[in-house]
Amino acid sequence: YDSYRRFIQMYGDVVLDVEKDKFEHLLDQKKQEKGVEKDTDLTGDDLKDLVGKFKAVVKEATGADFPEDPKEQLWGAVGAVFKSWMNDRAITYRKLNKIPAEWGTAVNVQAMVFGNMGDSSATGVAFTRDPSTGEKRFFGEYLVNAQGEDVVAGIRTPHPISNEQKERAGSDLESMEQIMPEVYNQLVEIYQKLENHYRDMQDIEFTVQEGKLYMLQTRTGKRTGFAAVRIAAEMEEEGLIDEKEALNRIEPEQLLQLLADLFETEEKKKAIESGRFLARGLNAGPGAAAGKIAFSAEKAETMANAGEKVVLVRIETSPEDIAGMVAAEGILTARGGMTSHAAVVARGMGKPCVAGCGDLKINYKEKTLAVNGKVLKEGDLISIDGTTGEVIEGDLPTVPSEINQVLVSGTIKKEDSRICQIFSEIMEWANKYKKLSVRTNSDTPEDSAIARSFGAEGIGLCRTEHMFFEGERIDAVREMILAKDLSGRQKALDKILPMQRDDFKGIFKAMDGLPVTIRFLDPPLHEFLPHTAEDIKDLARKIGVSFDELQEKVDSLHESNPMLGHRGCRLGIVYPEISEMQTRAVIEAACEMTREGVEVLPEIMIPLVGHVNELKLQKEIVVKVADRIIAEQKVNLKYLVGTMIELPRAALTADKIAQEAQFFSFGTNDLTQTTFGLSRDDAGKFLPYYIENKILEADPFQTLDRSGVGELVKIAVEKGKCTRPDIKLGICGEHGGDAASVEFCHIVGLNYVSCSPRRVPIAILAAARANLAGKLN
Amino acid sequence: YDSYRRFIQMYGDVVLDVEKDKFEHLLDQKKQEKGVEKDTDLTGDDLKDLVGKFKAVVKEATGADFPEDPKEQLWGAVGAVFKSWMNDRAITYRKLNKIPAEWGTAVNVQAMVFGNMGDSSATGVAFTRDPSTGEKRFFGEYLVNAQGEDVVAGIRTPHPISNEQKERAGSDLESMEQIMPEVYNQLVEIYQKLENHYRDMQDIEFTVQEGKLYMLQTRTGKRTGFAAVRIAAEMEEEGLIDEKEALNRIEPEQLLQLLADLFETEEKKKAIESGRFLARGLNAGPGAAAGKIAFSAEKAETMANAGEKVVLVRIETSPEDIAGMVAAEGILTARGGMTSHAAVVARGMGKPCVAGCGDLKINYKEKTLAVNGKVLKEGDLISIDGTTGEVIEGDLPTVPSEINQVLVSGTIKKEDSRICQIFSEIMEWANKYKKLSVRTNSDTPEDSAIARSFGAEGIGLCRTEHMFFEGERIDAVREMILAKDLSGRQKALDKILPMQRDDFKGIFKAMDGLPVTIRFLDPPLHEFLPHTAEDIKDLARKIGVSFDELQEKVDSLHESNPMLGHRGCRLGIVYPEISEMQTRAVIEAACEMTREGVEVLPEIMIPLVGHVNELKLQKEIVVKVADRIIAEQKVNLKYLVGTMIELPRAALTADKIAQEAQFFSFGTNDLTQTTFGLSRDDAGKFLPYYIENKILEADPFQTLDRSGVGELVKIAVEKGKCTRPDIKLGICGEHGGDAASVEFCHIVGLNYVSCSPRRVPIAILAAARANLAGKLN
Repeated sequence: YDSYRRFIQMYGDVVLDVEKDKFEHLLDQKKQEKGVEKDTDLTGDDLKDLVGKFKAVVKEATGADFPEDPKEQLWGAVGAVFKSWMNDRAITYRKLNKIPAEWGTAVNVQAMVFGNMGDSSATGVAFTRDPSTGEKRFFGEYLVNAQGEDVVAGIRTPHPISNEQKERAGSDLESMEQIMPEVYNQLVEIYQKLENHYRDMQDIEFTVQEGKLYMLQTRTGKRTGFAAVRIAAEMEEEGLIDEKEALNRIEPEQLLQLLADLFETEEKKKAIESGRFLARGLNAGPGAAAGKIAFSAEKAETMANAGEKVVLVRIETSPEDIAGMVAAEGILTARGGMTSHAAVVARGMGKPCVAGCGDLKINYKEKTLAVNGKVLKEGDLISIDGTTGEVIEGDLPTVPSEINQVLVSGTIKKEDSRICQIFSEIMEWANKYKKLSVRTNSDTPEDSAIARSFGAEGIGLCRTEHMFFEGERIDAVREMILAKDLSGRQKALDKILPMQRDDFKGIFKAMDGLPVTIRFLDPPLHEFLPHTAEDIKDLARKIGVSFDELQEKVDSLHESNPMLGHRGCRLGIVYPEISEMQTRAVIEAACEMTREGVEVLPEIMIPLVGHVNELKLQKEIVVKVADRIIAEQKVNLKYLVGTMIELPRAALTADKIAQEAQFFSFGTNDLTQTTFGLSRDDAGKFLPYYIENKILEADPFQTLDRSGVGELVKIAVEKGKCTRPDIKLGICGEHGGDAASVEFCHIVGLNYVSCSPRRVPIAILAAARANLAGKLN
Repeated sequence: YDSYRRFIQMYGDVVLDVEKDKFEHLLDQKKQEKGVEKDTDLTGDDLKDLVGKFKAVVKEATGADFPEDPKEQLWGAVGAVFKSWMNDRAITYRKLNKIPAEWGTAVNVQAMVFGNMGDSSATGVAFTRDPSTGEKRFFGEYLVNAQGEDVVAGIRTPHPISNEQKERAGSDLESMEQIMPEVYNQLVEIYQKLENHYRDMQDIEFTVQEGKLYMLQTRTGKRTGFAAVRIAAEMEEEGLIDEKEALNRIEPEQLLQLLADLFETEEKKKAIESGRFLARGLNAGPGAAAGKIAFSAEKAETMANAGEKVVLVRIETSPEDIAGMVAAEGILTARGGMTSHAAVVARGMGKPCVAGCGDLKINYKEKTLAVNGKVLKEGDLISIDGTTGEVIEGDLPTVPSEINQVLVSGTIKKEDSRICQIFSEIMEWANKYKKLSVRTNSDTPEDSAIARSFGAEGIGLCRTEHMFFEGERIDAVREMILAKDLSGRQKALDKILPMQRDDFKGIFKAMDGLPVTIRFLDPPLHEFLPHTAEDIKDLARKIGVSFDELQEKVDSLHESNPMLGHRGCRLGIVYPEISEMQTRAVIEAACEMTREGVEVLPEIMIPLVGHVNELKLQKEIVVKVADRIIAEQKVNLKYLVGTMIELPRAALTADKIAQEAQFFSFGTNDLTQTTFGLSRDDAGKFLPYYIENKILEADPFQTLDRSGVGELVKIAVEKGKCTRPDIKLGICGEHGGDAASVEFCHIVGLNYVSCSPRRVPIAILAAARANLAGKLN
């Protein structure tokens, strides 16, 4: 009757759309009535009674009797599977994994076996290697006298499968190896056969019915980034796969996990000593996350949309929570094992996750979390360490991961950990098989050095305006903006020159021997001025002008659509003295470094060009100033002048622009904004709706839109090469760090992509995979 | 010595760049000294003395002696001509007339004749037909004992050339026909020969040296729109040219003049009776203009840029004033005849102009205008009637021109004036030779009727949002925006529905038998809300919500880049109920009108589509609602659903969009903004600089940019036709009324252009010329 009771409950829920709670409520009632805690403590009569009640619930909800005909049940179930393809969670999942909706699903009908037929029965799930670390050890969980749902739903705490696992976890629970050694050995034999057959780590489900082992399912197992890297490298070592296949086994995004920050050890120690330790759960998703508590997926989304960092705290998660998990920095659950929904999904997403932290008393209604004598409310800060399983009250500072630190240190040493060795090997392979160069977007010597240690082969985008905000410089910048004439502007620019020159010196040094693309001033000038009355008042006092005068200047610079306003090269054209100063800063720094023996390869990039004449005018200034300095300083220095292609018009007239440009760098952020007519700052009101409702396949700011923006890139590449066959082509939008976009860049024949320092390894791997995929096709 | 004096003065000014005023100052000084008024009253000795002084001025200014060698002088003059190609006035002129800078200029060297060798000498300029009205009469001005400069510079008032002209003007001045009848007859013979040879009205310059006539120059004469139309039509009648050539003789822009407003007769009468009449000058450029007085070209520009209507008031104009003339509504000068600079240029621009109004005492220093016992200051209002020559104090209301009125009345009657008959004939020819349809942009039944009477063959753009602002509607619109949920929005929309339906009924009636393209709601919702604290307070009180609540809503709708924000179909997608309401309003109105016997051809246009899915979703709503209503009402109604192509992505993916769209309408205003990454609202800070400095050839918002925006249009046309060969293609940006852009639309194969009602005849003529040009090539 228990199976039957479960069947009605699940069938009612999944096939007939009856509210699940109605069954749960009756079950809870019955358990209370009988004074028992576990479902398995209920008697046959209890269950029989429940079956009747469940059927009544179905009848009430659907208006029809519960179908007793097995054929009818079967077809109902088959239909429910097909229908499930279009439910919200499937849609979210597809969106997340970029699976087209057209694919549809299939139904596999198989005979039922029962793991809940007494103590010689059991059910479990297992991975052929550790899905968390990638270690080559059998890793699984099982429960005696249970069905599959019991293991994965996290309602009962599952047992370790092997003795090794039991020992390592220090668990009191009996392992399958202990209890059912024969069946366990059979299982080991099968899992090894399966792994060798599929040449990949398998996620298997099995049931033991009265001593007989049945395999229910095998599929390629989800894994953390750590595991993906380790399994790929070790399978290559074992001769199961080759280097190319190994690279294809690692999703580029997964590398983020290996480079993810950890909590700063001393700070964490202090926090724990000062009593902020709350609990320890399973280290289900490596990485460190700190943020405000959200008790529901919806709340997590709302808070994240408001710009807050969120940790999603749930008793257990279900597929309905996916959107909230995406929005959260990390996930913490009170129930469920390493194979629970929360754990599996978090690992797939590369999110830190602490699962099965049973000490937590979560009250959804009160929105509180009681643990270790404390009560935390929604919005309170919490820190979770997915690498250790620790949960700590409050916020904790983070530090770079081990791999991160090793990379930054310069070289991998023998004493560095296995994962560091493996990571370095994988990156070596990726570099070997890729065709695209990978550069970085960096504005400081520090970031440049980090990116270089991560494998960057140059700087693809150095934004000079970021330097304008630092320290006292902003005063000189403001002086320039507020100057009434050229001589006033010139005076202010003279103050900025040495500071900017020093910036470039540091960056050139860090990038010795590698190209550095420097973009000239891009944002509209009003971005450098204060906007609130109070700030304007402060600045007016500071620089000795009247409030009204300053307010008037601020007002006069106001723009209705700053994105489409007086910015980019339009600044350098109306105020050529700015471009002159920037050229001097770049070239003087380059000459000085060259004399010091640094190999400097500056590439000056003019932003927001829409018409070749703009570039022509700016290039004239650059060449005039640069050549004069180089001649004066008698230094052997070569430099390039090129442009961003970030406006549709630039792409469409790339043949003309290439007459002047020695290189193109696709600014796909702005190009996406103008091609779609979509402001990134304002899209929040409808873009999520668009993606939810499949109007757009993916966020075009995240993954390059091939049909629109990509078409312009293609046009520009073709036209640019037509005029100047050896033109250097790169991309410096944020798409440069997105694997799918990197693939596109490879396909259209760019020379390099440029991305943020931390994404450099991702881009390298993506570039290798793109090249390998191209060769396979 | 007078010739020599003049030569040094002009050579010094034009070739040697000596300040003109220095010579004028010495001349004035000498005249004062001698107590004479006219240059010609100075004696030989006076002039000899001046020559010496002038030479000294040149020496001081240039550091070199005045060149006495004629060869040196000649080469200096030749060089000055070539150099003049790049001076500001030439650049402005070229910009105005869209002449490429690459063309360069030529120099024609010819022997000198002198019109100032006593009373048997003279000089003059003449037109072979009246350049103002186009009448077939010899029309010119001359001066005895003078050089060409004296006639055109407006320093001496020139005499009429013929007796007919003298009589008609009621002039006391002796005509050339009276004084030099023989030479006059010779001139008549020559001008007729020239006109017959060139088959166009000629602008001739001549000099009589001691009784002998010399022709200095002949060229095609500039003319007003009235004259262009009349001359073209009459030359066709005379058999000099054919219909096609006649159409090519009229610049489409010139038609604006014929349709220009006049002052309302009664109001003008009242103003004159109440003592506001100031003076009467020459009716040098037809049309009525009222605005604030500006005494300099710079001031006129500044005021016009600030959105004010300006009348440029000058003693006389010179080529330096062109930019100010462009900015002004009209031009008023105290000196100069019908062939003065001001008159010629104003007519060319189609601007109202009153010239040679000698009663005006203009004081540039005090910035005052004294006339008829009154003193007006800069910024005071003034009205000029370029059709009659009247100058009136203050502002005057205007009414449509005669042609305008006749057109609006429906048909040309025999008693209507000659110019009306001719205009109608020209439009008939244009309609015969054009291939493109011409529609209009109109949001009201009134405008629709006017446009139809002007020849519009349908509405290409009916903006529904304009209807949202009218009267009490804005309250319902605001109620919709502020509604907290769907039912609240629905309630407000229910109020808007009948009003919008009535709008459409009126428009459908006015456009009986012609297609009407209705664009669904386009602007972001915040445009409908108040923005100042005071207005928000008012509205909050009115609709009974708290100030804070309303302020919060206003804030939440604020956008960084509204141009790229939540607007266009993005509104209809997030709030499908708006599109449903608009569909109902359109289709219910169409059904009702159809039942009343009106032939309704509604075309529903979805704005700002960037992805085919957007159009698909909106089309589903439209079709569902429309087909239901049509079925319910049992009316035989066909309608189309199409889209604007106004985003680069839409153009690039036009093949996909055409799967859903039955028509494309190119919204080239927005397409220009996104293709260039250029906000129209913000471009004022640098676009004028770009055009001045030839970075862009023309304002892309005025004339369609063929290489960028045009390339996208081409791509979209090709891709659209590929998917749907019979797709209807049109343009509804403001370019639809610009002749050069209309030509482009013809070339790429659009079906129609759409423009503002008053520009319909211009577009028709431009369409005909484009077709004829295509056939010639």
